Amino acid sequence: MTNLKEQNVQNELADLRVEKELDMDTERLARAALSRLMEPQDAAGLALVQLAGATDALRIATGQVAAGPELERGITGLLADSGSAGWAGLAAALKRWQPRLPDLAPERDLATMARLGGRLIIPGDELWPAQLADLGIQEPICLWWRGQEQQLPGADKSIALVGSRDSTSYGAAVTGDLAYALGQRGFTVVSGGAYGIDAHAHRAALAGGSSAVPTIAVMAGGVDRFYPSGNDDLLRAVANQGAVLAEVPPGSAPTRYRFLQRNRLIAALSSVTVVVEARWRSGALNTAHHAETLGRAVGAVPGSVHSANSAGCHRLLRDGGAVCVTDAAEVAELASPSGTALPDQRTAEAAVQDGLTLEDLILLDALPLRSTASVEKLSAVAGLGQDSVRAGLGRLGLLGLAVSERGGWKRGKA
Amino acid sequence: MTNLKEQNVQNELADLRVEKELDMDTERLARAALSRLMEPQDAAGLALVQLAGATDALRIATGQVAAGPELERGITGLLADSGSAGWAGLAAALKRWQPRLPDLAPERDLATMARLGGRLIIPGDELWPAQLADLGIQEPICLWWRGQEQQLPGADKSIALVGSRDSTSYGAAVTGDLAYALGQRGFTVVSGGAYGIDAHAHRAALAGGSSAVPTIAVMAGGVDRFYPSGNDDLLRAVANQGAVLAEVPPGSAPTRYRFLQRNRLIAALSSVTVVVEARWRSGALNTAHHAETLGRAVGAVPGSVHSANSAGCHRLLRDGGAVCVTDAAEVAELASPSGTALPDQRTAEAAVQDGLTLEDLILLDALPLRSTASVEKLSAVAGLGQDSVRAGLGRLGLLGLAVSERGGWKRGKA
Repeated sequence: MTNLKEQNVQNELADLRVEKELDMDTERLARAALSRLMEPQDAAGLALVQLAGATDALRIATGQVAAGPELERGITGLLADSGSAGWAGLAAALKRWQPRLPDLAPERDLATMARLGGRLIIPGDELWPAQLADLGIQEPICLWWRGQEQQLPGADKSIALVGSRDSTSYGAAVTGDLAYALGQRGFTVVSGGAYGIDAHAHRAALAGGSSAVPTIAVMAGGVDRFYPSGNDDLLRAVANQGAVLAEVPPGSAPTRYRFLQRNRLIAALSSVTVVVEARWRSGALNTAHHAETLGRAVGAVPGSVHSANSAGCHRLLRDGGAVCVTDAAEVAELASPSGTALPDQRTAEAAVQDGLTLEDLILLDALPLRSTASVEKLSAVAGLGQDSVRAGLGRLGLLGLAVSERGGWKRGKA
Repeated sequence: MTNLKEQNVQNELADLRVEKELDMDTERLARAALSRLMEPQDAAGLALVQLAGATDALRIATGQVAAGPELERGITGLLADSGSAGWAGLAAALKRWQPRLPDLAPERDLATMARLGGRLIIPGDELWPAQLADLGIQEPICLWWRGQEQQLPGADKSIALVGSRDSTSYGAAVTGDLAYALGQRGFTVVSGGAYGIDAHAHRAALAGGSSAVPTIAVMAGGVDRFYPSGNDDLLRAVANQGAVLAEVPPGSAPTRYRFLQRNRLIAALSSVTVVVEARWRSGALNTAHHAETLGRAVGAVPGSVHSANSAGCHRLLRDGGAVCVTDAAEVAELASPSGTALPDQRTAEAAVQDGLTLEDLILLDALPLRSTASVEKLSAVAGLGQDSVRAGLGRLGLLGLAVSERGGWKRGKA
């Protein structure tokens, strides 16, 4: 009897598990389809998903089900609340999605990913990076992921290195140093897979990386093709050893709009966004602003005031949002501001006279380097009473800063 | 009768003027003497002058008059209040001053200054720089001034440029550009007369200066000799066209202690202190800290992270006290933060697509560059309804971003 009861409970639990898996499969398919219908950050679409859930959102988006006035009002309210004035309501959205309905084939897209050794992850998955929830309604509805299945690092272990495509040799050197050293410290380096700073960041992170996921490339287009094609080998290596992610489905072109939206994902995955080189106007600044909006730390690498490729970094420093960072230790400090990763102490450069009182410093200045001087002479030169000079010489003598020779005093070698 | 009365009033006024002048002469002689007895920032001495006045302070310092217990208590209290724990009270100070009493010859020092075409100014003089009052009890008791008699600029027209003696060619170039351009804008460039950044600052200010006092050198030693001797010609030119100042009397050696104290005067004379190049440990950082303490703005010029000569500047930027400055306009902005001197607008770099809505930006991305596309095609590519595409094409057409050709649409040249 007890066994039978237990068996029933087990069966019921198994049924629930299967049901949940089936639900997740339906949800996954729905989100895969929605990611093809909707551009990233389609505010009306995201509002629809939030209010109706992905599965019903897809039914509404494809015209199988009507939304109804209550849902439409809800979406309009949500759009107003989130300040998405640039987007019209649901009716306009349905028209916008309509031309793409014939392209919908989520099973085919998922099969493509599986063939490429990848997968689709959605919010609620164990593999979903928890830090993306900080994006709120701007959280992507799914991520297409090319690379080995493994836990992606949390924000505290992820650092974004971004910058110009037309980097200088200075920018290349600094990016390489930073990415390599951050990799050695166990950080994952997040970047955008582009030429220039991005490529240097991925490459050095692959070389220096000590974590399971040394580097992540977040793409503006589909992960089935590597873009730009000149980075094909590099991005293949990133996929093999790390991860290549995108919120748009396979086959999507990397449009300018998608680049701008992609930047928010780079910022949201990382606890720190470091701009290594950027012109006065640069996409890297857009990533930095996303990081600021999310309350994440922003670092900027200084450079020559004569280099146009550092003007954007200096702009970030001037505007007050960015912290000046010059090495990996200073970047790591931003990732754990509680002080667990203090930068290397520069004690070697401390001078022995730092702790002296004002009177002893004056006396030290008065001591001759080669010849010697009497206490009376020192008293006159330093403008100190003879008692003070005698006491000061005692203290300086203990520090090796003063030595007595044939009844006089001179500077020590300390 | 009325004339007689008027005559009496005139005589009385003249007497008062003579009396005041005599008082000022006595005060001037007393301060000249005190500046030889006391090191800069001798806290006990400054407290004595504040409580007893310069004339009586000299009488006490020279042992002509005893201070009395009330004054001694006052000095001890003032020292405690101003946190000058490094300095003992009056008794120790009297011992400290004693060895220098035989050197006192204030008339000779004033004659020396007159012979060099200079003078001594004291607080209360019309020529005294009013901004030095911000130093409080640390205000110098006098200034020895070599150069033409003329009004020195207020803090709002004075900018300090400081930095390493062993400047790089980068630091030299930036300093020259800044000093010249600030001079052209009518600012006085204040610096320390040393090799390196200081010398470049003075030189370029002399070349570019458009104000009556193009540059001021504040010396750590006496202004009778120019130090370092390699800058003799330069400092002679600064004295001829601008001003060379020191708080120590003629004949005083430039000791390390006096350098550190001198830095507070550079900071106090200027509304902004800009560190152009400085090592991790540098006297220029000391000047910056003085400026911060006074609530004056601090600017730091960024440079290569590989240059040890920029490490001090980056340290100032990281510590949060300094603003990143890359040209004279940004420095001038710090001098008048109310916005009267805004930096040059970089509108030329603004792109025409900056004001577009998200939908129009997506549509712009979808427009082919060479071939043309139909509204239907654009609707599918952009993921926008055909109505939206038509409306968007109208808006982009007005901006010159879209042009229609043979029934299709392509990118405009705007």
